[in-house]
Amino acid sequence: MQNFQQPSGMPVHKYRPYHEQISVELPDRTWPARRITQAPRWCAVDLRDGNQALIDPMSPERKRVMFDLLVSMGYKEIEVGFPSASQTDFDFVRQLIEDDVIPDDVTIQVLTQSREHLIERTYESIRGAKRAIVHLYNSTSILQRDVVFRTDKQGIIDIALEGARLCRRFETRVPETKVFYEYSPESYTGTELEFAVDVCNQVLDILEPTPDRKVIINLPATVEMATPNVYADSIEWMNRHLNHRENVILSLHPHNDRGTAVAAAELGYMAGADRIEGCLFGNGERTGNVDLVALGVNLLTQGIDPQVDFSDIDQIKRTVEYCNQLPVPERSPWAGDLVFTAFSGSHQDAIKKGFESMEARAAVEGVSVDELEWAVPYLPIDPKDLGRSYEAVIRVNSQSGKGGVAYLLKTDHALDLPRKLQIEFSGVVQAKTDADGGEVTSDQIWSIFTDEYLPSQVDDDRWGRFELLSTRTQSDMSGDVQLDVALRDGDDRVSASGHGNGPVAAFLEVLRAHGFDVTVYDYVEHALSAGGDAQAAAYVELQVDGERLWGVGIDGDISTASLKAIVSGVNRAIRTRERTPELAAV
Amino acid sequence: MQNFQQPSGMPVHKYRPYHEQISVELPDRTWPARRITQAPRWCAVDLRDGNQALIDPMSPERKRVMFDLLVSMGYKEIEVGFPSASQTDFDFVRQLIEDDVIPDDVTIQVLTQSREHLIERTYESIRGAKRAIVHLYNSTSILQRDVVFRTDKQGIIDIALEGARLCRRFETRVPETKVFYEYSPESYTGTELEFAVDVCNQVLDILEPTPDRKVIINLPATVEMATPNVYADSIEWMNRHLNHRENVILSLHPHNDRGTAVAAAELGYMAGADRIEGCLFGNGERTGNVDLVALGVNLLTQGIDPQVDFSDIDQIKRTVEYCNQLPVPERSPWAGDLVFTAFSGSHQDAIKKGFESMEARAAVEGVSVDELEWAVPYLPIDPKDLGRSYEAVIRVNSQSGKGGVAYLLKTDHALDLPRKLQIEFSGVVQAKTDADGGEVTSDQIWSIFTDEYLPSQVDDDRWGRFELLSTRTQSDMSGDVQLDVALRDGDDRVSASGHGNGPVAAFLEVLRAHGFDVTVYDYVEHALSAGGDAQAAAYVELQVDGERLWGVGIDGDISTASLKAIVSGVNRAIRTRERTPELAAV
Repeated sequence: MQNFQQPSGMPVHKYRPYHEQISVELPDRTWPARRITQAPRWCAVDLRDGNQALIDPMSPERKRVMFDLLVSMGYKEIEVGFPSASQTDFDFVRQLIEDDVIPDDVTIQVLTQSREHLIERTYESIRGAKRAIVHLYNSTSILQRDVVFRTDKQGIIDIALEGARLCRRFETRVPETKVFYEYSPESYTGTELEFAVDVCNQVLDILEPTPDRKVIINLPATVEMATPNVYADSIEWMNRHLNHRENVILSLHPHNDRGTAVAAAELGYMAGADRIEGCLFGNGERTGNVDLVALGVNLLTQGIDPQVDFSDIDQIKRTVEYCNQLPVPERSPWAGDLVFTAFSGSHQDAIKKGFESMEARAAVEGVSVDELEWAVPYLPIDPKDLGRSYEAVIRVNSQSGKGGVAYLLKTDHALDLPRKLQIEFSGVVQAKTDADGGEVTSDQIWSIFTDEYLPSQVDDDRWGRFELLSTRTQSDMSGDVQLDVALRDGDDRVSASGHGNGPVAAFLEVLRAHGFDVTVYDYVEHALSAGGDAQAAAYVELQVDGERLWGVGIDGDISTASLKAIVSGVNRAIRTRERTPELAAV
Repeated sequence: MQNFQQPSGMPVHKYRPYHEQISVELPDRTWPARRITQAPRWCAVDLRDGNQALIDPMSPERKRVMFDLLVSMGYKEIEVGFPSASQTDFDFVRQLIEDDVIPDDVTIQVLTQSREHLIERTYESIRGAKRAIVHLYNSTSILQRDVVFRTDKQGIIDIALEGARLCRRFETRVPETKVFYEYSPESYTGTELEFAVDVCNQVLDILEPTPDRKVIINLPATVEMATPNVYADSIEWMNRHLNHRENVILSLHPHNDRGTAVAAAELGYMAGADRIEGCLFGNGERTGNVDLVALGVNLLTQGIDPQVDFSDIDQIKRTVEYCNQLPVPERSPWAGDLVFTAFSGSHQDAIKKGFESMEARAAVEGVSVDELEWAVPYLPIDPKDLGRSYEAVIRVNSQSGKGGVAYLLKTDHALDLPRKLQIEFSGVVQAKTDADGGEVTSDQIWSIFTDEYLPSQVDDDRWGRFELLSTRTQSDMSGDVQLDVALRDGDDRVSASGHGNGPVAAFLEVLRAHGFDVTVYDYVEHALSAGGDAQAAAYVELQVDGERLWGVGIDGDISTASLKAIVSGVNRAIRTRERTPELAAV
């Protein structure tokens, strides 16, 4: 079977293999035979390395939301900024300390270059903190020595040692703060190993690690330059050659240029590291830092406690998207909108049989399904453990094969459904057509969509329990909004009022008074056209008394469209309960 | 330094480590010491595994665009569908053959389950093809044997062997087609190695591989269940235990559940595999198949020819986004919008020095920079080799730290700039304010934006060479559109006409007649509001006579907004040339 592949014409002559640049020889490596048995120490660098890589850096308010999220998940070491390089970072560190919002068991970390005025400023930033890690770095790679610093190895060592000495000196200025140290030979992956360990060992001699005050040596893949086994080899080599090893916390900081940062972190951890720095969902410079969500949930799937709480992954995702103003991709490990879907019939069938088998086993053993070992084909984790659910999507083709459900709603009705609503609605179409992959017309799809999500146009066939009849909002510019609504509730007309920071929050208060506990999980809106009769569509993902589902609202006013969408979702939740009475008691 | 991490409460009791499920023992592994020296055989499965994982599967037209893209990039083995499972897949395979669009050196591959009527139908689908790979699979994992097939090992072997025999039988029905075989023990990562090799060896005995007609044995990580070194160990073990090894093409098919598919492919290839199946940008079931772009460009960075052409990565990305209707993430390796950006001052400085050093070396050696080894910090590849450029983004904060440039344009002017335009405009703001990370007001940003992209509102200060004065379009529903425009060209008023499949294409023809070679690289539009005076914004990324840049248009009519955006881009290109006269001759 001939291989017909041809030279591509790409300029291969410009690139030299990694092993010709940096020698990493470790024939007696032991890491490939090791297994991970416990969580590493984590350090979340979303507020520094992650924030540094955003087109629009986080506002102080967004930074605070990110900090609180990381704390609530269980991260205990959090790099909060580069205070000497940026006034906003400095102010944020001060705010954390002065507002006294750092829990006693959380240690903030601040980055600094190895220059006197920057180090001095760094210590000013942490004054008053109970504990802090001062993270000192300088670049050590062959390339940076040559083209950036134009100095030899001794010059680089001098920069590092001078920084370490300055740290020890300024330490006395913050007597009320327990200061710990981290040192990074930046661009480590472009540095000769012998030189990297030499710099680290000389820095350690100055920082004098002790059992009570270990020093973190962090070995960044500032640029990921080789397959991840090479990084692991280098970590095992460093692990063997670092002095004071018993008092050193060996830390990894992989970037994802080659798409193998998660592997580099895992293999490097097997090779002897103690600690991993990364960002949620892999935010960070260029292709990002290593993804802390992937690493953490990977541990859980092996029966290892990540010591971080991922039980509401959608909430985590939504918060991170808000802070970073970057979407988490649809296929992001353990978290993307599409990762718990199955589209193929054979996968769906196998998953169904897996669920049935677990239920049967639980019945036989007289235990709950949640006490059993998880064993469902194509689902390496129980989505429920992350607050998600499995979605079997049977796709319906349009006639003439021109596209599917989402495509037709977009083309014929200008509705651009969020991905998860597309998935939900596919199930609705499937249930109503029983088409089993067959064809339906665009008109049928529209009819199913309006019937499911939008108030019926026919007066004598009232759609759902609630209907929005009128609204009035008042704001005194204090951030509080009062909403007065008239609602049809069954056959009655009722008036109600609520307060909140916006009409949506106020409306949720109204619904609570009617006995519905509604939380908004996701919110997307868009205009339907650019014409003179423009309408807006709002889509909300709600949790209504424990059930997660979508609502849709269309109106000329975007605020009204949002409220209609919430009504749509609540009406759908009520309908579901009426169809399945055993849920009504929940 | 105490570790304060606490148990998370996640249900670790539900998960058992991989090594307790599947034993992979290979103490004398050799792969960690090996290095990749040449490209594997590639097989692109975008049209099967990728397409199967889309909410809206590709239309026949989109499938054809994807096929042509894969062929043009240099892929020689392309899995084009699962024809026995889907009529649209069947029709697509027939169309490729009947329209005679498969080049002689490209082999199509079709997937089939091991059931008689499906295999028969598969051979019907490939009738008339010059060459085809019939890809037979059945599931072999412990879990699928237990809960899906409810059979023992012999039952699974019987399914595989019966399928292989049927393939040999139906082969005679397509005498004009050179048929090759691929066999996959599906859910291989959940299968005991001894059993996997037993099934494969028995199938091989029936398929009778020869040097001229090797058989592909494909070992899918249908679900990625362990760190990638374990997959590599298993591949090396299989490589040692497969019979007919000299006539077997050992193939990998990693999925990305744990975020380590690229690593699994690379380490598995080092462990003795010959071939890798994957999808562009990692599309595919759940978290996706392994990313062929990451794998290919990774090779290039090591001086190895990927035998696939990635020299216009934006074009590839745009085409894949069109086919899959899924965005390629901002941080996708080698291709995301953000991967060649640098936001931090120290990175920008180092990169600048790297470029300067290369230029100096080139001058000394009397060669072009492109003949030198690439050596720029923080840029592991020359973006130019992928048709991209490096972007130094100096961020400008708004006053009060409420957000950056993109945030303010969105909040205050309802403009939602595409990511790459955000990057371009950040540079414009920086050049005009020289603010060096300082603060600017929202009004200043808007003034800079309109001055740069939008026609001046002031009559006596005409913005740019061209201005759109009026347009008329006519369509006879044949797919051809005639556009008549009146343009201001400097101080003259000119009329012109063009044809195309839409107004934009027709307008490009008008511009060509004026001596401008303009290609549209990206196009994004949105409505500005849902109110009665709704306007639409259009953003186009153009290549104008070799220069890549953005244009922006705003109008009540979306079609007019698009044309205005093109005028904006062309005017900007002319301005750039006037500022840098040495380019005017290009």
